[in-house]
Amino acid sequence: MRISELSRRSGVPNATIKFYLRKGLLPPGRATAATQAEYDETHLRRLRLIRALISVRGLTVNATREVLSAVSEHEADVHQVLGLALGAKRVDQDGEPDTQPGMSDVDALVARLGWQLSEHTPARGVIAETLETLRSLGTDFSWRALVPYAELAQRTAVLDLDQLKDTDDALERAERAVLLTVLLEPALLALRRMAQEHESAVRHGAIPGPSVPGPGGG
Amino acid sequence: MRISELSRRSGVPNATIKFYLRKGLLPPGRATAATQAEYDETHLRRLRLIRALISVRGLTVNATREVLSAVSEHEADVHQVLGLALGAKRVDQDGEPDTQPGMSDVDALVARLGWQLSEHTPARGVIAETLETLRSLGTDFSWRALVPYAELAQRTAVLDLDQLKDTDDALERAERAVLLTVLLEPALLALRRMAQEHESAVRHGAIPGPSVPGPGGG
Repeated sequence: MRISELSRRSGVPNATIKFYLRKGLLPPGRATAATQAEYDETHLRRLRLIRALISVRGLTVNATREVLSAVSEHEADVHQVLGLALGAKRVDQDGEPDTQPGMSDVDALVARLGWQLSEHTPARGVIAETLETLRSLGTDFSWRALVPYAELAQRTAVLDLDQLKDTDDALERAERAVLLTVLLEPALLALRRMAQEHESAVRHGAIPGPSVPGPGGG
Repeated sequence: MRISELSRRSGVPNATIKFYLRKGLLPPGRATAATQAEYDETHLRRLRLIRALISVRGLTVNATREVLSAVSEHEADVHQVLGLALGAKRVDQDGEPDTQPGMSDVDALVARLGWQLSEHTPARGVIAETLETLRSLGTDFSWRALVPYAELAQRTAVLDLDQLKDTDDALERAERAVLLTVLLEPALLALRRMAQEHESAVRHGAIPGPSVPGPGGG
């Protein structure tokens, strides 16, 4: 296909595609004339993954190029590709595991759950930070209280991975993983807020007050 | 207790407490001398809720004052207080329900789940937006695919509400609800990322590549 069709099918503007070609994110097409090239389905899939990494995951152009090259290198290894696309594995795996405060709690949690995780997963740091913050605010919330939350997260992850089963193409799978993982995040938090409201209504009743009318509040 | 002890026990600096007193977020203490006042446990609980609403939920001072006054008005109604503290119910409930695109999908989802929700829950808009974005990117992800996610969110909300069972004090319960709901959000997303990595390792195996060494990746 010509670049204009590639643009139409990917939703990425012509000028942006040319920019990605210049930056080496997208490999050149097959030259058909001095100023024309022909692109194929692999370009389309790669372009969609680029869009997901830049627009949805918020990576820079340089970081995207590094992820793409690592993905190409490991294309046969689905686990590797998903980890790279989602940022669970760093492109550059050198360096020590993180040693911030609270990390031993995270290790205890992961050990209890029996999860197989890379030592570099940035998510570990988020858990450690959250536990530290809750502790500094005087709550008695410990890593043990996270275990049932983690078990539900595991069931959520099963749903996530099920969404990727329909495709065997590594790039397409990586794109869908980024879209579903990142874009669903605010929706999953919103579902939790809504479910809290429902659960609170069930437990504590919803007494319609004068300032909160409406059928939904009753 | 004196203001210095209130500061020590709440972790809120003296000057900030005085600012909250001037702004009417905190009711005055009982005057014991021309320049001295005595504060009690209700001040402490209210101060902790103020801190949670401002630092954790990110409300402005004015918005916090409105929430506090609505909470005081409905103190006997646990469901109302939690809804106000978490932002599920607006302090000002006037106005029409939102009519943004995708909202009928959210109504269909809520109806399927049988959830009792106020019409003004901002979370509805987040779900509608997410479904619109996923549609615009060409995925076939519909509200029906959210149903199993919502069922897991409901079980998460049960865990959340269980954390609030130990206290009967409305302000304390509201504070804990804000802390646990808002502060756990990044941790819950991190748990999902970690669970995805584990689930991917289980399904697709973790083939140790030359650039990804380490016991965690094997």
